Amino acid sequence: MKKRSSWNWFAFGLVLALFLSLSGLKTAEAQTAAWKLQTTWPAGIFLHESAVELAKRIVEMSGGRLKVEVSSAGTLVPAFEVLDAVHRGTLQAGHGWSAYWVGKQPALNLFSSVAGGPFGMDNVDYVGWLFHGGGLQLYREIYSDVLKMKIHVIPTDIIASEPLGWFKRPMKTVADLKGKKFRATGLTAEIYKELGMSVITLPGGEIVSAIDKGIIDGAEWMDPTMDKELGLMDVAKYYHAPGMHRHTGTLELLINKDAWDKLPADLKAIIEVASRENLLRSWLDLTSRNVKDLEVLKTKHKVNMVEVPKEIIIEILKAWDKVAERYSAKDPVFAKVYNSQKEWAKKMVDYRRSFYAAYDIPADYYWPKK
Amino acid sequence: MKKRSSWNWFAFGLVLALFLSLSGLKTAEAQTAAWKLQTTWPAGIFLHESAVELAKRIVEMSGGRLKVEVSSAGTLVPAFEVLDAVHRGTLQAGHGWSAYWVGKQPALNLFSSVAGGPFGMDNVDYVGWLFHGGGLQLYREIYSDVLKMKIHVIPTDIIASEPLGWFKRPMKTVADLKGKKFRATGLTAEIYKELGMSVITLPGGEIVSAIDKGIIDGAEWMDPTMDKELGLMDVAKYYHAPGMHRHTGTLELLINKDAWDKLPADLKAIIEVASRENLLRSWLDLTSRNVKDLEVLKTKHKVNMVEVPKEIIIEILKAWDKVAERYSAKDPVFAKVYNSQKEWAKKMVDYRRSFYAAYDIPADYYWPKK
Repeated sequence: MKKRSSWNWFAFGLVLALFLSLSGLKTAEAQTAAWKLQTTWPAGIFLHESAVELAKRIVEMSGGRLKVEVSSAGTLVPAFEVLDAVHRGTLQAGHGWSAYWVGKQPALNLFSSVAGGPFGMDNVDYVGWLFHGGGLQLYREIYSDVLKMKIHVIPTDIIASEPLGWFKRPMKTVADLKGKKFRATGLTAEIYKELGMSVITLPGGEIVSAIDKGIIDGAEWMDPTMDKELGLMDVAKYYHAPGMHRHTGTLELLINKDAWDKLPADLKAIIEVASRENLLRSWLDLTSRNVKDLEVLKTKHKVNMVEVPKEIIIEILKAWDKVAERYSAKDPVFAKVYNSQKEWAKKMVDYRRSFYAAYDIPADYYWPKK
Repeated sequence: MKKRSSWNWFAFGLVLALFLSLSGLKTAEAQTAAWKLQTTWPAGIFLHESAVELAKRIVEMSGGRLKVEVSSAGTLVPAFEVLDAVHRGTLQAGHGWSAYWVGKQPALNLFSSVAGGPFGMDNVDYVGWLFHGGGLQLYREIYSDVLKMKIHVIPTDIIASEPLGWFKRPMKTVADLKGKKFRATGLTAEIYKELGMSVITLPGGEIVSAIDKGIIDGAEWMDPTMDKELGLMDVAKYYHAPGMHRHTGTLELLINKDAWDKLPADLKAIIEVASRENLLRSWLDLTSRNVKDLEVLKTKHKVNMVEVPKEIIIEILKAWDKVAERYSAKDPVFAKVYNSQKEWAKKMVDYRRSFYAAYDIPADYYWPKK
């Protein structure tokens, strides 16, 4: 009796102990999640690394309560199935480029790599449109209301303005471009077609060999860092910049809506803030790499820079207007996004020109062109 | 005996319970901190609001483990004592503008509102220098090694390029500026002096009345939003932009080093990432407000915009070069930071000009100047 009573008291104390410690554990448990994130990029390239870096920060800031395991294209699902896999919940998250999904809705191209300024806007003006001009709301509505998908989207990376491209011979006029066999993709391909070029769509891995064999005369890919990673300088020595076919835009973090809704408020804030920080972080990082890699291309690989004349830039703008008008005419969602950008640009560009001196004024003063 | 034994067992269970729950509490307690943050700004203005917003995000992401109570200039210590108060630990944090401390070290001006490009760099290039060109390291060394202060600094806001200023009559040439009585502060004041102006330093609150009474002919303050908050349009109707005397720069979060070192890794990461996110967030927010307020200034207040000609911009660059050379000659820390900016700009500006089309090309195409 004595023994049993002692045990009862001990058990009472222990139950109390367990209750107190478990109530603590339960709170921690409710705030813990483990996510699978697959990117649409091969491992090792800058775009994949950016998602790895973003996930690292999210895990760090959450004190490990949110674990995010990042894998590269094809590891769990094929690259082009990332969006559907996130919608189904096979993946909790994905990292990609909304132009991959233009087959579902062409307006998604207006959030990925935007051509033609857009309407005079640079990276800053464009990202301003996303956060203050209604762009992000339209972006989210396309996934949730138009496509009826369980997707919460957050922009994560600002893309650099992409150069016109690589050729074996210098292209100095619009006439030079006519009839050239050229690699390009998506709506961008339609712009090059408008310029009179013969456009072929090839995946990244086949471009170098196609130029080498003379199947194509030239190609566009991304920027100094990523063009160098692909090896374009080994088969073409004339690098043409600037371009206007992909002047600004963003990459995206796709999150399964159920997984998102389950998160407590602090983890949601961590993901939103880390993603927006990543816009600036990866942009500055990429710019700094581009500067270094451009130097390597010029000195080590003897690449010749060809300055794309204003005449060609204007022709690209005209070509883009035609392409965009075609899509606007047949798709009201495209027209809505396109008009929203135009409306924002109308006000923004005027302010920017009044209050920021042209970049060339101090640049010419300190570093006159030789 | 039986009773005491039962109590012993209960006590044992209870001690176990307390140990388990307290060990949980102890962890939570170690991760909890309450900070006092004072800004150098009056309540209600955009710059103060930016610090309030940043603190809100930090508290949100930390799930309330880090409490940050934000107060405005003068609440706990005078505005210009914020740095010393953070160093002493009277405040755990402060929000300000490093040019306020140029009396301690003139190079701090090169992190706050940088004149003359700098060397051709815009906001993006300049913030790139901070994070990839060694700028942030130099910034931190000035507080820790040169001034021997217990300060951990993080940049939090990107300033807009500031317009030349307000006058009662339009200024169209360098000759128009000569002899004018003008309000300006700090190194910027020295630039206006080099242009032949008679410079008077006045605090914000006295500018409007000084113009109204004819004590001064004009003044520079900040940007459309903050100039409107001050009421400059009520006493001068000619708004001159762009400027080159404060072309880029940042605001700062000052953290007491002991308070910083006590934080666990996740809270440190939250503060670093939230501050860097704030650079982009507040920049876009301010730009968007500037656009709206510029419209109000023009339409409601009948303000006339005067485009500052290239000739005046070039004279500002020349004036800034003289001022900066003087400081470089007498202060090796200033020279080191100045040269670091020049070295970064030399590479960055070339890449930016090659790979980004001039802003005016698409802007003129879509929105030709009338």
